[in-house]
Amino acid sequence: MTRARLILITGMSGSGKTTLASYAEERGYEVTTMGDVIRDIAKERGLEPTPRNLGLIAEGIRREGGDAAVAERCIERMRRGGAAGFVVDGIRSLEEVDAFREAFTDILFIAVHSSPRTRFLRLKERGRSDDPGDWEAFSRRDRRELGFVVGSAMAMADFMIVNEGSLEDLRRAFEGLMERLDKE
Amino acid sequence: MTRARLILITGMSGSGKTTLASYAEERGYEVTTMGDVIRDIAKERGLEPTPRNLGLIAEGIRREGGDAAVAERCIERMRRGGAAGFVVDGIRSLEEVDAFREAFTDILFIAVHSSPRTRFLRLKERGRSDDPGDWEAFSRRDRRELGFVVGSAMAMADFMIVNEGSLEDLRRAFEGLMERLDKE
Repeated sequence: MTRARLILITGMSGSGKTTLASYAEERGYEVTTMGDVIRDIAKERGLEPTPRNLGLIAEGIRREGGDAAVAERCIERMRRGGAAGFVVDGIRSLEEVDAFREAFTDILFIAVHSSPRTRFLRLKERGRSDDPGDWEAFSRRDRRELGFVVGSAMAMADFMIVNEGSLEDLRRAFEGLMERLDKE
Repeated sequence: MTRARLILITGMSGSGKTTLASYAEERGYEVTTMGDVIRDIAKERGLEPTPRNLGLIAEGIRREGGDAAVAERCIERMRRGGAAGFVVDGIRSLEEVDAFREAFTDILFIAVHSSPRTRFLRLKERGRSDDPGDWEAFSRRDRRELGFVVGSAMAMADFMIVNEGSLEDLRRAFEGLMERLDKE
């Protein structure tokens, strides 16, 4: 068992997970994303970290070891790091949460929710590689790829942060939560 | 298309759906639960509304007509009623939401979230027929029966209300949302 505090963040694409993780980072937490773990493996295997290679690796690991497999690689990575607090950005399923619960005692499992409309607009604005296309395409992918697993993780989160306002509102919600927990 | 406003409420067991629906009722909305629809059918068929009969009817309707089937019966029921605003307490899946979206233009799709711990304690306190048993039994049933479908609906809700505090807090969150929407 690791006694460091672990913050697990889940939420749909465009809901603000990475922003939340960055606020935790400012408080001294070390951030790991599930993508970092996959990039490590690409490096071990001498593969270029192209989106195609990373996708194939992630798929292979999940197929072989189930949903918890990436979580377990992530736990090893954190143990090597040895920080006093960690954040995992991008929890995708309850199986991952269970794997972390077996390794850490002090876990804050946080979901962040924004409406589909808000997330669509954010992703549009962000543009680049995660451009959601039009509303129909976004909605189809959103529901097919993520809704089922991520949704079931969100339903079971210990803390829900609603992110429909400004970045300042999101920061205030996060800091408020952290301060409340520190007092307990 | 029906021009009345329709509030759809989803959330896990013990999250506060029925309490939210009662606040809407105070504002003049007519409340229908998915259970009411099933009880109607039991009556039509001359069956006693025992939990066993109601369960079998619900299962049969969903098997024959898919997840949207109960929603469609619910829409017929509301059309006969003819109120200016309706609430459906207990949306279980996105398929149901889609069925309502085809019949109503003015929809507020609200999810209410409480942590598993909070919901467990509430159901314990409430006791009666929905006693959750011990934490392990609650957690298992919670995840198996509801998590997947209800969670995916929650992830796609237009509004998320967090219900971790008092009834007064919940009422304030709901009234605040309604007032904000009325101003738009």
